[in-house]
Amino acid sequence: MLITLIGAGRVANHLGPALHKAGHRFGQVFSRTMAHASDLAMVLGAEAVDVPSAIKPGADLYLCALSDDALTTVLNDMVSPQWNHPLLVHTAGSLPLSVLTPYTNRAGVLYPLQTFSPARQLDMATLPLFVEATDDTTLQLINTLATDISRVVKPLASEERLTLHLAAVFACNFVNHLYGVAGSLLEERGLEFSLLLPLIDETASKVHSLTPREAQTGPAVRNDQRVITKHLQALSQHPERVALYQLLSEHIHQQSL
Amino acid sequence: MLITLIGAGRVANHLGPALHKAGHRFGQVFSRTMAHASDLAMVLGAEAVDVPSAIKPGADLYLCALSDDALTTVLNDMVSPQWNHPLLVHTAGSLPLSVLTPYTNRAGVLYPLQTFSPARQLDMATLPLFVEATDDTTLQLINTLATDISRVVKPLASEERLTLHLAAVFACNFVNHLYGVAGSLLEERGLEFSLLLPLIDETASKVHSLTPREAQTGPAVRNDQRVITKHLQALSQHPERVALYQLLSEHIHQQSL
Repeated sequence: MLITLIGAGRVANHLGPALHKAGHRFGQVFSRTMAHASDLAMVLGAEAVDVPSAIKPGADLYLCALSDDALTTVLNDMVSPQWNHPLLVHTAGSLPLSVLTPYTNRAGVLYPLQTFSPARQLDMATLPLFVEATDDTTLQLINTLATDISRVVKPLASEERLTLHLAAVFACNFVNHLYGVAGSLLEERGLEFSLLLPLIDETASKVHSLTPREAQTGPAVRNDQRVITKHLQALSQHPERVALYQLLSEHIHQQSL
Repeated sequence: MLITLIGAGRVANHLGPALHKAGHRFGQVFSRTMAHASDLAMVLGAEAVDVPSAIKPGADLYLCALSDDALTTVLNDMVSPQWNHPLLVHTAGSLPLSVLTPYTNRAGVLYPLQTFSPARQLDMATLPLFVEATDDTTLQLINTLATDISRVVKPLASEERLTLHLAAVFACNFVNHLYGVAGSLLEERGLEFSLLLPLIDETASKVHSLTPREAQTGPAVRNDQRVITKHLQALSQHPERVALYQLLSEHIHQQSL
């Protein structure tokens, strides 16, 4: 399939090369920042462009891996009426399929549920991909594209995808922030973050075989007020950490009742 | 070494068998619940007891793996003056070494930094163990005991151990609770928790090679108010989830400035 890649950020830099490796060709790569477009276009053997109006019609599929805000701005400058219903696909967790239908009647979603950082190699074969489309033919086409790069492909409607995206914020973005708070606490005492890695790994590993509720340990679930008071005293120089500790401990205790 | 194990909970059930496997002998296992004492005593080839006064003097080491509250209660009923300074060791993250010194002048700490759940096999060889003692001879002895079961043994003073314990609450207990919130969100939509496992694993894996700050992704660090507003709307039936989402998002945004 001849694909035009709209965007050259984290998601584009993971999905583009994976699709390329699976045998798909890339015509153009767009980014507002020419350096980003060029770097990725080089990898994909494509032309780099940095203005939406330079994106050409005629590709089999336009894969839009843009920030949610950028998507409609770029599409407004890119798709003209003579394009005649291009196949548009976006990769966003929090945008419904319907954001694409003002531009075409053939649209779809390919949402990768993962946290993408530069220089991280991912096992793409186990990357969960969630697909949706305006019609069965388009769904089948996007499904084929998705299964070219991953074994874990599931159809999912827009509303459920938003829930999944929200759950991912809790299970990934917020979790990573808590790793950061823990790291700051250690750093302030001259202790290394790496001391926590076996604990972090086991915590993630446990929920493969136990539910999070079964896996819960610590002073909050035991309602061990003596330990909680000691911890709050140790945090007292940082009111924002106290607020976080109290709110999370209360939630854990409430759920354990 | 002849060890008496005081406690038959999660920590005792991991440390006891590991020490037994390393060639140490167990005289008695104490738990207020006879069934718990018996189960573990069976594994360790020891005598089970359920009253502190039945614990005999004469062991080389008394390993106290008790909840913080239970520790002094049990020691009060167990150690009499004619015991003549038994070697007492506790395993608690939040208790200073000094809680043991009213009972003996030979005391120490062996703190395992891990989340222990029943039926979870752990790689004990990489379990971080933090040791402290009243004197160099005792420290050396506890250090030898610790290195019998793990390659990762470090001396750590009581105050730093409390910080480590607090950091562990953020990096493990609170993290696991967020897994639980994410799971509840999915469950309410008929989606499976297991969909999140590749994301959870990659989030834990990332901080092996990036700092948590470098690894941070998501709407809060981008300050993407459109997505944040959508998520808050989706959570609006659960005020406690809204509070958690807002507090964590604000923290992430503040830290990224």
